Amino acid sequence: MKPDPIAEPALSLRATVVIVGGGFGGLACARALGNSDADVILIDKRNHNLFQPLLYQVATAALSPADISEPIRRTLGRYPNIRVLLGEVTGVDADAGAVLLESGMRVSYDHLVIATGSEYNYFGNDDWRTWAPGLKTVHEARLIRQRLLLAYERAELSGNPVEKRALLTTVVIGGGPTGVEMAGAVHELGRYMIERDFRSLRAEDLRVLLIEAGPRILNGFPDHLADYAADYLRNIGVEIRLGDPVQKIASDHVVVGSERIETGCVIWGAGVKATPAARWLGVEPGPGGRIPVAPDLSLPGRPEIFVIGDCALAKDDAGEPLPGLAQVAKQQGRHLGRALRRKLEQGTALPPFRFHNRGNTAVVGRNAAVFDFGRWQMKGRLAWYLWAIVHVWLLVNFEKRILVSLQWIWRYVTRQRGARLIDESAPEVPATTARSETSNV
Amino acid sequence: MKPDPIAEPALSLRATVVIVGGGFGGLACARALGNSDADVILIDKRNHNLFQPLLYQVATAALSPADISEPIRRTLGRYPNIRVLLGEVTGVDADAGAVLLESGMRVSYDHLVIATGSEYNYFGNDDWRTWAPGLKTVHEARLIRQRLLLAYERAELSGNPVEKRALLTTVVIGGGPTGVEMAGAVHELGRYMIERDFRSLRAEDLRVLLIEAGPRILNGFPDHLADYAADYLRNIGVEIRLGDPVQKIASDHVVVGSERIETGCVIWGAGVKATPAARWLGVEPGPGGRIPVAPDLSLPGRPEIFVIGDCALAKDDAGEPLPGLAQVAKQQGRHLGRALRRKLEQGTALPPFRFHNRGNTAVVGRNAAVFDFGRWQMKGRLAWYLWAIVHVWLLVNFEKRILVSLQWIWRYVTRQRGARLIDESAPEVPATTARSETSNV
Repeated sequence: MKPDPIAEPALSLRATVVIVGGGFGGLACARALGNSDADVILIDKRNHNLFQPLLYQVATAALSPADISEPIRRTLGRYPNIRVLLGEVTGVDADAGAVLLESGMRVSYDHLVIATGSEYNYFGNDDWRTWAPGLKTVHEARLIRQRLLLAYERAELSGNPVEKRALLTTVVIGGGPTGVEMAGAVHELGRYMIERDFRSLRAEDLRVLLIEAGPRILNGFPDHLADYAADYLRNIGVEIRLGDPVQKIASDHVVVGSERIETGCVIWGAGVKATPAARWLGVEPGPGGRIPVAPDLSLPGRPEIFVIGDCALAKDDAGEPLPGLAQVAKQQGRHLGRALRRKLEQGTALPPFRFHNRGNTAVVGRNAAVFDFGRWQMKGRLAWYLWAIVHVWLLVNFEKRILVSLQWIWRYVTRQRGARLIDESAPEVPATTARSETSNV
Repeated sequence: MKPDPIAEPALSLRATVVIVGGGFGGLACARALGNSDADVILIDKRNHNLFQPLLYQVATAALSPADISEPIRRTLGRYPNIRVLLGEVTGVDADAGAVLLESGMRVSYDHLVIATGSEYNYFGNDDWRTWAPGLKTVHEARLIRQRLLLAYERAELSGNPVEKRALLTTVVIGGGPTGVEMAGAVHELGRYMIERDFRSLRAEDLRVLLIEAGPRILNGFPDHLADYAADYLRNIGVEIRLGDPVQKIASDHVVVGSERIETGCVIWGAGVKATPAARWLGVEPGPGGRIPVAPDLSLPGRPEIFVIGDCALAKDDAGEPLPGLAQVAKQQGRHLGRALRRKLEQGTALPPFRFHNRGNTAVVGRNAAVFDFGRWQMKGRLAWYLWAIVHVWLLVNFEKRILVSLQWIWRYVTRQRGARLIDESAPEVPATTARSETSNV
């Protein structure tokens, strides 16, 4: 796809496109600009892109972090016109056309793409984060994994039945796809570990609670799919609490409505908000902190700045905001990258973005998932097979590492949990374990 | 291997064997006692056994921690007579026959097996540990990996050639097998990353120094193998400094002899000492803190207490101390487990332990290794193939996970470095990066 020499602009100065954020959106945009006439600089505070749809499997010890991470430099290393910078962006000087990094460095741009995604929203209770990590980064997934495994280890050691039961209780907050997936996976992991690995734990002490402040789980899905998911979860033993928001989260308990629940591990999946990119740009954010964009994904009044993915508030043809999904970010990134390429190489105007819905899915448990394609829906075993095929395909595509995917299928089928690591750097863990004296265990 | 009912002891009381440490020695001992007449309790502060011979590959991003870790509960879950406790031992009450845990718990034993291994010896400079982690745990391997990768990222960003060169300098301290393997692997990783992934780094700025206070590297190997390894390393570009001990280690430099070397990453592999088990037992330790044991591996004067692996000072027929190798620990564990089993089931006396040398090896680089079998030696490509075959076999055996091993071979062959994760929890990193102002990068 080298540009036709005749179409090359007369000016020999190359335009610089700076992309902030190396997630699905930023990487798709960078790839579409690979080997183009532009100098591309991608800035991220981490050196890897994360396949977040499977992050819950890292948290539940089915996968290793590296299995679902791809070094950004490896993904983009083949394009000589793209440079990658590891750095934290602290602001944008839009008038001067430069991005500011924490190190003090300024990176000048001709075109700027903001693709910094979203983070968990604790609705003003940021101290809850300590006891209820969300599921956005490798670090958090590893933290949840350690807390879960440590709670079971402590339960095994405890001689106190009340404490034992508390440690085997996991509370998942938020009934969206992440919460549903975590609740199902934690229950499966707990049952598996109690049956195979522990001696003093009983299956009837295993408790997984899914807390949703709204009237139903899977709010973004049609009713009958949400009902199916709720029935399935209740059937395997997950308790679902609807309509009561969380009042308090502490090291060893949560308060829901007026009930205090003792717990060994709390997981947060209750809501997201956009990263503070609106502040960098000095614009008034829309709902969820997202930045309203024009149909071509540019910032109104700033045609050289674009916002894509979770931090953009783009709308579909019906005027509805597009959801914060990987597929939206990916399509926007690819669209924008191609559009910028044509603009820089041929002077073409930027076309509007149109979202093509590839289906919204949530996996509820082994052999159970829901799929919503808008006009039609699927649920149950067949939906799970489709989910698995789609995700293996996405993962293979993501990593270009077929063996990792094979390994994942293998572990999934054999129910092995190879990644059950408790690290010595772990703690900062709810310390419910009372010091107990026993002559033997 | 259920015991013959006739041979069962008349007493219905089962003996309790407590094993402290779930490394190669402790696990081999526990396995040999699996489904025996004894109640076995294995205590470890971590929940996994680590295949340490490949830990340097985690540090250099070729493997994930979970690839070389095996949950202890999974290994021992099949034996109903074995319980696993996650806990930190703080002492032994030998007169009462109980092990003391940090949590305050006491665990009574009839027979006690100490298999707590060794740790790095900073020769009184424990503050060096902050800047020069050793390579004993997953946490340390991950720390080294992060520091290495971050140093390169910072070098890429730096506009200062002196700083760039400092960040691309890695200092490995200690010329034993670990130091040799790390030096070779770090050089390979650095060359690979500079060639493929970075834009502003030059191969000639890559520096890896191997520092050994003694007169030669690979002290435990015959001269001609050590010479071969030194030549090989020098050929690929590793600088070897002999005869000068390290004087100082700081966040961004080390002092060797009288020379100050600026560096982005320091790795410690200079010496080990036994864990403080001698203190628990109130015995006078031998060289390296190891506990002298009788030929049957018991503690002299305490026939119910045994010490195996790196923390035992056992001797061969010639009266020479056995080396601190995985194969010694494994053989001792299996020997002791079987001996205890026969003693408990049939009243047989404990036979003396005899070490069978399976060969001592160190890998120097891609396609280069040394092997010492005592009577004969191997080096070069053939030795490397043998090393690879042996380690794949050991790893398959260790994990029972053939796909992980396949994946490892695959990554090794394709030189992929999939595990290049810099985690947000990382830092605590040498902060050499001066704040630099540039109008663009």
